[in-house]
Amino acid sequence: MAAVFTTNTLKAAPILFSQKIIRNKEAQAIVINSGVANACTGQQGLNDCEEMAALTAKGLDIDAGQVLIASTGVIGEYLPMPLLRSGIERACRNLSPENGAKAAQAILTTDTKPKHKAVAFRLQENNCTIGAISKGSGMIQPNMATMISILTTDVAISADLLQKALYQAVNVSYNRLTIDGEMSTNDCVFCLANGLSGNRIINKENQAYDVFLDALNAICLDQTRKLAADGEGATKSISVTVTNARTTGQAEQAARAVANSQLVKTAIYGEDPNWGRVISAIGSTGVDIRPDKLDIWFADIPVAREGAAVPYDTKKLKAALKKKDIKIHASLGTGTEKATIYTCDLTHKYIEINAEYHT
Amino acid sequence: MAAVFTTNTLKAAPILFSQKIIRNKEAQAIVINSGVANACTGQQGLNDCEEMAALTAKGLDIDAGQVLIASTGVIGEYLPMPLLRSGIERACRNLSPENGAKAAQAILTTDTKPKHKAVAFRLQENNCTIGAISKGSGMIQPNMATMISILTTDVAISADLLQKALYQAVNVSYNRLTIDGEMSTNDCVFCLANGLSGNRIINKENQAYDVFLDALNAICLDQTRKLAADGEGATKSISVTVTNARTTGQAEQAARAVANSQLVKTAIYGEDPNWGRVISAIGSTGVDIRPDKLDIWFADIPVAREGAAVPYDTKKLKAALKKKDIKIHASLGTGTEKATIYTCDLTHKYIEINAEYHT
Repeated sequence: MAAVFTTNTLKAAPILFSQKIIRNKEAQAIVINSGVANACTGQQGLNDCEEMAALTAKGLDIDAGQVLIASTGVIGEYLPMPLLRSGIERACRNLSPENGAKAAQAILTTDTKPKHKAVAFRLQENNCTIGAISKGSGMIQPNMATMISILTTDVAISADLLQKALYQAVNVSYNRLTIDGEMSTNDCVFCLANGLSGNRIINKENQAYDVFLDALNAICLDQTRKLAADGEGATKSISVTVTNARTTGQAEQAARAVANSQLVKTAIYGEDPNWGRVISAIGSTGVDIRPDKLDIWFADIPVAREGAAVPYDTKKLKAALKKKDIKIHASLGTGTEKATIYTCDLTHKYIEINAEYHT
Repeated sequence: MAAVFTTNTLKAAPILFSQKIIRNKEAQAIVINSGVANACTGQQGLNDCEEMAALTAKGLDIDAGQVLIASTGVIGEYLPMPLLRSGIERACRNLSPENGAKAAQAILTTDTKPKHKAVAFRLQENNCTIGAISKGSGMIQPNMATMISILTTDVAISADLLQKALYQAVNVSYNRLTIDGEMSTNDCVFCLANGLSGNRIINKENQAYDVFLDALNAICLDQTRKLAADGEGATKSISVTVTNARTTGQAEQAARAVANSQLVKTAIYGEDPNWGRVISAIGSTGVDIRPDKLDIWFADIPVAREGAAVPYDTKKLKAALKKKDIKIHASLGTGTEKATIYTCDLTHKYIEINAEYHT
């Protein structure tokens, strides 16, 4: 198994618990609850994790040291253990290969739809698969992962390389997602591999590793885009691509500033190609820019060239901005590197959800 | 005179123009327009500044090298020079000590009310005054100043010490304001001193300097609070104070993260003491925290102690959160330093203003 956790200094109890488990690099089960995050709950929170793991282990006849835990919901409340006890018992009893979609549904909080995906691919002579379920809608800006995402695969791969592949995939997918610039106390991505596909175990970075990584990247990006599209209150998903930056880090920093800009996100909600807000967001980061070389596109239509307005077909652009997927592209003119950040628009519904979501 | 400018890499033409003027440390007039920011306008933007300064100099019979310019409004459009020409001519003709309030009104864009203030104080044997007008409602997160703020005083002080005092005052006032985490291309604070109060010129950091700095701090903080209260769509102003931090920088960083948190700002709009969102925002910064020593107050009422929930009088807290000025206070337990950041809530109206403000 492999895992990536939130880098928030204030980690929830299930994160602290699971971080111990993964030292063994082996796990058999993941138990997830939604509604209460079990964050800021001190020793009792950790005790509750111990009990969740013990109950799951008992129900599945496995070792309690092989159970991972993830929680999502309100911070600062204790878990309602009577509910958890009966829920875990029932979940263990109903465990089946057909119930993945039910799990994807059960872990949601403010999400409006479940997010799952499976990909199949050939590795050596074997048919392999990777499956994923994810949840997350608000409090999302991974500084690593974000939200909860569970990946499973039948590929045979060493734990070290699985961890390496997971880091690589997370860095260009979940870590490039921001709904609202908020890093949760509970974010985690788990990946479990059981080796049942029959491939020769991947234990070096050979061609088989590359094939697996490609598949993993594809599924992580799929989940990332689904999370962006289902961001709290979102009416549109947005991808912000910055090209011709001096370094990948600068491209990412500039793209992230645009993706986190409340003004850019409300402009897209209003279907307005307000490139001034894009330029202002990029300029605020201090990354290397050539103001006289800065080009901006909305939906592949140029709106600014060499740092100044260019005439565009207003009707065509208005029509393009009515779509659900909006591309913003900025070229900085200082190098050759690029990065994309995924986000969504900022809407009345976001305000409604978060002003009314009471503690 | 003294000035502080936006640190946005993409500076508007009036900022670039005024930065040259202040090298002389002497100015006689400031001409301000709202509606068009004259940002991302290349050489034409600079030419328009030259003309604005020349017209103002002509109208007031002063040197064109003594005219500062500030602009606020839409990025990427050229100034409507015919309007500017007649406007400057009329403004020069109507210049009078009684018209300060009209200027405060004229510079507004999305602001709902003018912001001005004057303070009087004794310096040595003299009666002295400082006056201020400010505008700004959105695209506000100073990484220096933010928005436009004009300060005038009759104190006699050297240009170098005036600049030093302005930096000191700006750093604990305008620079601690955030409406939406956005740094404008046009932010600036100007301070002009004409020495007419008759005090012995302040040319070292003596007691008179301290008296002047106190008055300057007071007026800058007043304008900062007025800007926060009139943030786009705001129904409440919020002050976030972080205490017992290891360094002032860490206190400021933590307070800024809370003040920029969309989730905290919507919670305050919803009048909900969601301290979990405060903790999550602080944890995301990586500043030194003792999770078991972290205390949180809303409106001076403790809601979390030692990193966990404490019972509180729900009725009393609900009533406190109905007020217009909301205090959030977090104690990190790792030192003795503190800082306050000023902001406002995030509301439906903010979305409306910024989704409908079309280019």
